[in-house]
Amino acid sequence: MRISGLAAATGVSVATLKYYLREGLLPPGRATSRTQASYDDTHVSRVRLVRALTESAGLSLGAVRDVLAALDDPPASRHDLLGSAHRALVAAEGGVPSEDEEWDAARHRAVELVAERGWCDDPLLVDRLAEQLRAAGAAGVDLPGDYLRSLAAAADVVAAADLTTAGPEPEAALRQVVLGTLLTDPIVLTLRRMAQVRASQEASGV
Amino acid sequence: MRISGLAAATGVSVATLKYYLREGLLPPGRATSRTQASYDDTHVSRVRLVRALTESAGLSLGAVRDVLAALDDPPASRHDLLGSAHRALVAAEGGVPSEDEEWDAARHRAVELVAERGWCDDPLLVDRLAEQLRAAGAAGVDLPGDYLRSLAAAADVVAAADLTTAGPEPEAALRQVVLGTLLTDPIVLTLRRMAQVRASQEASGV
Repeated sequence: MRISGLAAATGVSVATLKYYLREGLLPPGRATSRTQASYDDTHVSRVRLVRALTESAGLSLGAVRDVLAALDDPPASRHDLLGSAHRALVAAEGGVPSEDEEWDAARHRAVELVAERGWCDDPLLVDRLAEQLRAAGAAGVDLPGDYLRSLAAAADVVAAADLTTAGPEPEAALRQVVLGTLLTDPIVLTLRRMAQVRASQEASGV
Repeated sequence: MRISGLAAATGVSVATLKYYLREGLLPPGRATSRTQASYDDTHVSRVRLVRALTESAGLSLGAVRDVLAALDDPPASRHDLLGSAHRALVAAEGGVPSEDEEWDAARHRAVELVAERGWCDDPLLVDRLAEQLRAAGAAGVDLPGDYLRSLAAAADVVAAADLTTAGPEPEAALRQVVLGTLLTDPIVLTLRRMAQVRASQEASGV
């Protein structure tokens, strides 16, 4: 199909498709003349993926590029594969902690929680958690230790489920871990709101 | 303190503070002359809150305005209060579903999941879940029913913990539900990644 057909099939404008092509987010089509190219179903899937990552998962185009690079060039062993999936996720989301007076206390809490769960103390993830704890504290939101332990227990339930959806085939597993996590993050948060409404109705005796 | 003092206390530039004032995100200071005003600790907390909502929770300034309006004008009864907290959350996050051929199937799955959990079928939340299921499906991410049921069970754990942190005093409870949810959303997602790393290490026998 021509670029206008790709636009029709994906609901993405021709101008946006040309932008994806220039930025390397979409591989070039097969040239059919000096000014025209032909696109196929792999292009349709790639455009849908870029849209899902930007719109649903809310990633920047730079972050989408990192995730696509990990998907397009997966490492050979399954162990390396899951490692690089997690690195791509963490790197794509970025964020540098701004250290201040509350930072040390927040980082201490993050390290303690991770040690208590027996989780790995990847400094990128621990720093990110510390920064998020610091931001909540600065906004006046109180997060008692028991509360954080409940969130951590729920995270173990989600992660166990996440792992069962990643099948044995390495490339498919990488795709499922990276995309599955990014695209189900919003689902996790919506389910939290639904469960909150139910929990507060129960508490009010409705 | 003068506006330069407020900037120093919060780490936010004078230009940004003036923007918050113009947009009504920060109440005016007490006028001390025709061109100067004096700010106090309530302004420091408000600036920190606006920063946390924009930077950590990733809300737009329009969405921050909706959340602040709910916080500044809480309804009288506790039941109305939790209801308006959830409406402020859902409205602040917005999003209109784009209906297409996969929409009906996704919405049917969302309705089924909600009915199975005995959750309330608030159409705003059900539509949002349906849109997120559709987006994951369009990107080629498979979400089996058992997987969604595990996510929903984890959401119940989080929501039960969320409710225990909201104390009996209505204004504080509203603040904790709205801000607590927005500011701990990123924490929930970080914990998920930490738990995933651990789960994949266990699966690889590391």
